[in-house]
Amino acid sequence: MLYPTLKAISAARNRLQKYTDCTPSIELNSIASQKRLGKSAQIYVKLELFQKTGSFKARGAVNNLLHLSEDQLRYGVTGVSAGNHAIAVAYAACCLGSSAKLVMPKSAQPSRIEQCKDYGGEVVLASNVVEAFEQVESIASAEQRAFIHPFSGMHTLEGSGVVGLEITEQMPQLDIMFLPIGGGGLCAGIAAALRQSWPEVKIIGVEPEGSAVMTKSFSEGKSATLAESNTIADSLAPPTTTESTFQACHALLDDLILVSDEQIRESMAFIQRELKCAVEPAGAVATAGLLMQEPSSLDGKKIGTILCGANISTSLYCDYVDGQL
Amino acid sequence: MLYPTLKAISAARNRLQKYTDCTPSIELNSIASQKRLGKSAQIYVKLELFQKTGSFKARGAVNNLLHLSEDQLRYGVTGVSAGNHAIAVAYAACCLGSSAKLVMPKSAQPSRIEQCKDYGGEVVLASNVVEAFEQVESIASAEQRAFIHPFSGMHTLEGSGVVGLEITEQMPQLDIMFLPIGGGGLCAGIAAALRQSWPEVKIIGVEPEGSAVMTKSFSEGKSATLAESNTIADSLAPPTTTESTFQACHALLDDLILVSDEQIRESMAFIQRELKCAVEPAGAVATAGLLMQEPSSLDGKKIGTILCGANISTSLYCDYVDGQL
Repeated sequence: MLYPTLKAISAARNRLQKYTDCTPSIELNSIASQKRLGKSAQIYVKLELFQKTGSFKARGAVNNLLHLSEDQLRYGVTGVSAGNHAIAVAYAACCLGSSAKLVMPKSAQPSRIEQCKDYGGEVVLASNVVEAFEQVESIASAEQRAFIHPFSGMHTLEGSGVVGLEITEQMPQLDIMFLPIGGGGLCAGIAAALRQSWPEVKIIGVEPEGSAVMTKSFSEGKSATLAESNTIADSLAPPTTTESTFQACHALLDDLILVSDEQIRESMAFIQRELKCAVEPAGAVATAGLLMQEPSSLDGKKIGTILCGANISTSLYCDYVDGQL
Repeated sequence: MLYPTLKAISAARNRLQKYTDCTPSIELNSIASQKRLGKSAQIYVKLELFQKTGSFKARGAVNNLLHLSEDQLRYGVTGVSAGNHAIAVAYAACCLGSSAKLVMPKSAQPSRIEQCKDYGGEVVLASNVVEAFEQVESIASAEQRAFIHPFSGMHTLEGSGVVGLEITEQMPQLDIMFLPIGGGGLCAGIAAALRQSWPEVKIIGVEPEGSAVMTKSFSEGKSATLAESNTIADSLAPPTTTESTFQACHALLDDLILVSDEQIRESMAFIQRELKCAVEPAGAVATAGLLMQEPSSLDGKKIGTILCGANISTSLYCDYVDGQL
C-alpha cells in the first residue's frame, strides 16, 4: 500500500487524541478576499498552525513514538531537522517519558532551538546538512536511539492523515484542495484521507520553486535529491524525497505547481490581513498556490487550503511581511 | 435592567446566525506559555478576531440594524468610529440592503477606511473627534439616518453578549476572565453572559492606561469624559463612557486594571509567538492583563482571555511587534 487506509488513519486519530489537538477550520470570506478570488468561490482554511508545537509535525512524531517498544523509548530517539520536526520529536519524547537527541543545522532559527530545549530535547548543531545526516546516524547507532524520519514512513503519513480526516469532517465536500510539499509527508497523508473520502476532489501540491525536489522526482519518475535549495520556506526544503513519499504523492496528486519566494511573502501578508494569522513562510505555501489561480477557475467551487505551521520569530516574520501591501 | 438577560442574548444569537460567525476558542498550552504563566494554569482563548469584519463589532452592528424598521433601513444608517465600528456598520448595512455613511477621523488607518468602502460604506473624514461627533449628528438629522452608537445600547450589548454565550459553551467553567475595555460595550456584554452563567467567575476588565476613561468613571461613580487619549490601542480609546455602559461594567466587574502601551506591545508579540495570531493593539489588551499576573495567583485556575480584533496593516503591525523578544 502506497499510503494509509482510512481505517489506519482513524486508528491513529484515536491513539493521538491524548497528545495532539483537533485544530479548527474556518471560512475565508473577507470582502478583500472576495475581490481577489471571486465572490462565488467558497474557501475553507485548516488552522493546523494551532497544533501542539506550532506545526503539524507533532502528529507524525507522536504516532511514531507510540509504535516504539518500552526498551526503545528507554534508549530514546533521534532525528534531524531545521526546526519543526525537531521540536515535534522533543515534544513526543517529553509526552511519552522518552528522551530526544536532535541534530539541527547551525543555521536553524534560535527560537526553534529554544523550543526543542524547552521540551527537554538535547540539541546537537551541525555545520551543514550532509554533516547533520552523518551525525544523526552515528548517534542512532552509538546510543541505540530510534531514528524518527522527518517526513517519510507509514506512521508519519498516518499522523498527517488525521489532518485530512478532520478536514473531511470540518469542510463541505471540496472540489479542490491545495497542499504544501516539502518531503511529501504532510501532502501524502492529507491527500490519502481526502482521496479515499472524496474520490473526485482535485488535489494540487504546491512546492517552493527554490526547493523543487518533488517536481524533480515527478519528472525523473523516482525519488530525487537536490544539490542545494534556496527558499525562505525552510520547513519545506529537505534535500531529498523518499521513494515512498514520491510514490504516494505521484498516486494521489492531480497537479504539482511551483511558487516563488515573492509569492510566498505576498501570501504571508494576505494571510495576516485576511485571516489574522502570522505564519512562517512554509505555512503560506498552499495559500500562495491558491492565490496564483485565475479567479474564473475558482468560480462556484469549494476550495480548501491549510496553514500548516507558524514557528518563526517576530523579527524574521516582519522581515518577510513588512513592505508587502 | 443594566445588562441583557441570557434569554435576550440567546435570541440575539438566533437573529445573528445568518450574518456573523461562531468563532472558535482554543487552549493556550505552549511550553513557553507554561514557563511564563505556570504549568497548572489552564488558559483558554476566544478567537473573536476571526469574526466577520475582523472584530467583534459586527455582532452589535448587525443586531442594531436588525431592530430598524424598513423605512429606517431605506433612509440608511450613520456612525462615528476610528475603524472597527465603522467597518462593522458598513458590513451590517451591506448585509441588510441598507446604506451607511460613516464619519472617521482623518487619522484613521487607510486600510480600515478601505474596508468600509469595500462594504459599500460612504466615508466622511473629520479633522478631530469633536468635529466627527458634530458631523455625524448633522448627517443623522439632515438625512434621517439612524445613528448606530459605537459601543453603548442594549442591542449592542446583546451582540457582544453572544460572544460570552459562546465562551460558556466552548470553555470549561472559568475561575477568571480577562476582558478589554474601551467604552465598555464588549466588556459589559460578555460579562453579562458570563456572570449569569457562572455566578462565581472573577471578571477583570483591562483598560489601556493612556485612555483610562472607565477607570475615571469608576472613581467618579458616573460616566466620564477624557480631554485626550494617548494609546496605541486606538480601538479602545473613545473619549467617553456612557452612563449605561459604566453602570453595567460597575455591576459586573470584580476588578479593573490598567496596561501600558509597552505591555500591549509585549502581549502582541507573545500572542504571535504562542498563539500564532497577528492582532491589533486593542486585540492584545485582555492578554496583556493576564500576562501581568503573578503566576502563583493563576495556579490551578481555569482562565479565559479574548483576541477581539485584528484590523491593522502589516507595516503598522511590524512597527509594534518588531524588536519585541
